[in-house]
Amino acid sequence: MSSPVTAQRPPAAPPLIAVDAMGGDHAPREIVAGAVRAVREHGLRLALVGRSSELAPLVAAEQAARELPIVHAEEALAMHEGALAAWRRARSSVAVGCKLVRQGTAAALVSAGSTGGVVSTATVRLRTLPGVLRPALALVLPTTPTPTILLDAGANADAKPEMLVQFAHLGAAYARVGHGIAEPRVGILTIGSEPGKGNKLARRAAELLSANATEDRLDFRGNIEGHDLLAGLVDVVVTDGFTGNVALKSVEGAVRFAFDEIRAALTSSPLARFGTLFQRRALRELRTRFDSETYGGAVLLGLNGTVVIAHGASRAEGIAHACLLAHNLVVGRITDQIRRGIAGVSRTPSWLHRLSAPEE
Amino acid sequence: MSSPVTAQRPPAAPPLIAVDAMGGDHAPREIVAGAVRAVREHGLRLALVGRSSELAPLVAAEQAARELPIVHAEEALAMHEGALAAWRRARSSVAVGCKLVRQGTAAALVSAGSTGGVVSTATVRLRTLPGVLRPALALVLPTTPTPTILLDAGANADAKPEMLVQFAHLGAAYARVGHGIAEPRVGILTIGSEPGKGNKLARRAAELLSANATEDRLDFRGNIEGHDLLAGLVDVVVTDGFTGNVALKSVEGAVRFAFDEIRAALTSSPLARFGTLFQRRALRELRTRFDSETYGGAVLLGLNGTVVIAHGASRAEGIAHACLLAHNLVVGRITDQIRRGIAGVSRTPSWLHRLSAPEE
Repeated sequence: MSSPVTAQRPPAAPPLIAVDAMGGDHAPREIVAGAVRAVREHGLRLALVGRSSELAPLVAAEQAARELPIVHAEEALAMHEGALAAWRRARSSVAVGCKLVRQGTAAALVSAGSTGGVVSTATVRLRTLPGVLRPALALVLPTTPTPTILLDAGANADAKPEMLVQFAHLGAAYARVGHGIAEPRVGILTIGSEPGKGNKLARRAAELLSANATEDRLDFRGNIEGHDLLAGLVDVVVTDGFTGNVALKSVEGAVRFAFDEIRAALTSSPLARFGTLFQRRALRELRTRFDSETYGGAVLLGLNGTVVIAHGASRAEGIAHACLLAHNLVVGRITDQIRRGIAGVSRTPSWLHRLSAPEE
Repeated sequence: MSSPVTAQRPPAAPPLIAVDAMGGDHAPREIVAGAVRAVREHGLRLALVGRSSELAPLVAAEQAARELPIVHAEEALAMHEGALAAWRRARSSVAVGCKLVRQGTAAALVSAGSTGGVVSTATVRLRTLPGVLRPALALVLPTTPTPTILLDAGANADAKPEMLVQFAHLGAAYARVGHGIAEPRVGILTIGSEPGKGNKLARRAAELLSANATEDRLDFRGNIEGHDLLAGLVDVVVTDGFTGNVALKSVEGAVRFAFDEIRAALTSSPLARFGTLFQRRALRELRTRFDSETYGGAVLLGLNGTVVIAHGASRAEGIAHACLLAHNLVVGRITDQIRRGIAGVSRTPSWLHRLSAPEE
């Protein structure tokens, strides 16, 4: 699974993708290098957004001035910058990238900037698709043979049951277009495996999802517990942004912890360390599979335009993958898919009725 | 860390601990074996609760009839039994065990029965301590050198900020009495590391904890994120039962997943497998550290009496550890500690005022 995302056949003229060249721990150098790679190896059409005085020499050094136009943006969001500070900055590279998407000049935006800053800037500047209550941040978990998509990973700390129902549609569209899963199975993250378990939010959302699964053409499989996140029982796991963020970071921390503990155990004695001489290849392959760079990053779904947020620590390869993912989402018409899924939901009178009813 | 719980000096007459002999995947055989071990190796005073016709032969086979009295209970909760069904059953071994505690005959209850069933039965039959809004289920994470306590692990799916403040006191008392941590550092599980991050519940609870930390004599350290759960940054992590349960199960699932993946990698080729011949001891030690049986189980805090819930899959050793933990909590006067901690909170007028104010 070193490359779960592969280029789909491009249309006559590939869509233009705006790349925030100023966001990320290794910006702008690795961003430019990744963009060059995406253009040359995958035939994508990209534009860099950022300070042209910094970017032009880097692009020139790669002899890529013809392939990689630069759109100037005066400011850059710092990696530590909070959501509130971020969306006020109209001249940041993220904001300018969003403007290109809004105008129709670009079809998608890729950024390795701080997740909070990119989410809030994009939400304010791109707005949600008609009928979409809130955008959701989707991340992928490294299950085999296909990854598991979890959303919302943190765009909305407080959610309503109706939002979770919409997230199911956003996630299903992303699974189909972004990961080639034709009939995505959807589950809801909660506690306990039987129906009726969980907090008020999860219980109500599960009810709505069960009640409308048939007319919504959604393959809803019910409850998913924390220990099943990496079991591949479903393709899409729906939850609120608070629980989703805690769960994802818990998984991330626990996997890192387990690997650290095992590394310590395997090097705890000269004898054990000697044993690793025979395991180098196996351990290297494992590391590659867990390498977040091969997954292309998180996707912000439900906006008027596609936004891919690469890991802040991304190097050239991670950026190239994120660009490829954005390209594939545009070519696969992800926003049309979402529009259709949500429109199906919005037409359901029983659902609309519940939506307007006061919350229990 | 094969035995993080060790017997504290027993008083003149050790307190009696009721052991639910019918709960758990390996009940009653392994429960009886564990109880015998706890009595003989640690000098505890126990009583088995369950069907005497089943238990008497097992106790006789261990020649332990004198050391291990049996209190008859007609029924047993099935492991799959829901919380609602569970607490209605007045004659279940868990209910009879609670009755012994309520009467003052026993000082604590140990059960390896279904968590939902034990929590609901004990909550209804033992009631909360004066001033305690809700009981909380506390679990330990295998950090070094001391474990990290997480609560609530699932007793309350929907919580209020004031409950989380109380959980901080319950957890701090448990850290002191159960794990010998003199000055427990307390954190709140949320998303984002800066103050003001999280959902409404976590933000409000963090505010209350910060505002009252000094007068409450609580060492509140602020926000803890999912990836820090195993980092040992604090001794007590406070959260609502929904988030706590999802986080714990996510950690559990991810650690198991990582170990499985590494085992697969280390045995993926004859050469790699050959390497493991030199690592047997190191890998065995690692497994022992992660073995849930050495931690004695979850503790339900805040009730009139101590309840330890051993892992459902516990064998004799796990049961013996759970009995030892219950014994130590009784000898360390955990309920008095909690009473004092909560009383301190309840006397705070500003806090009481907020409690009675309508929720934002």
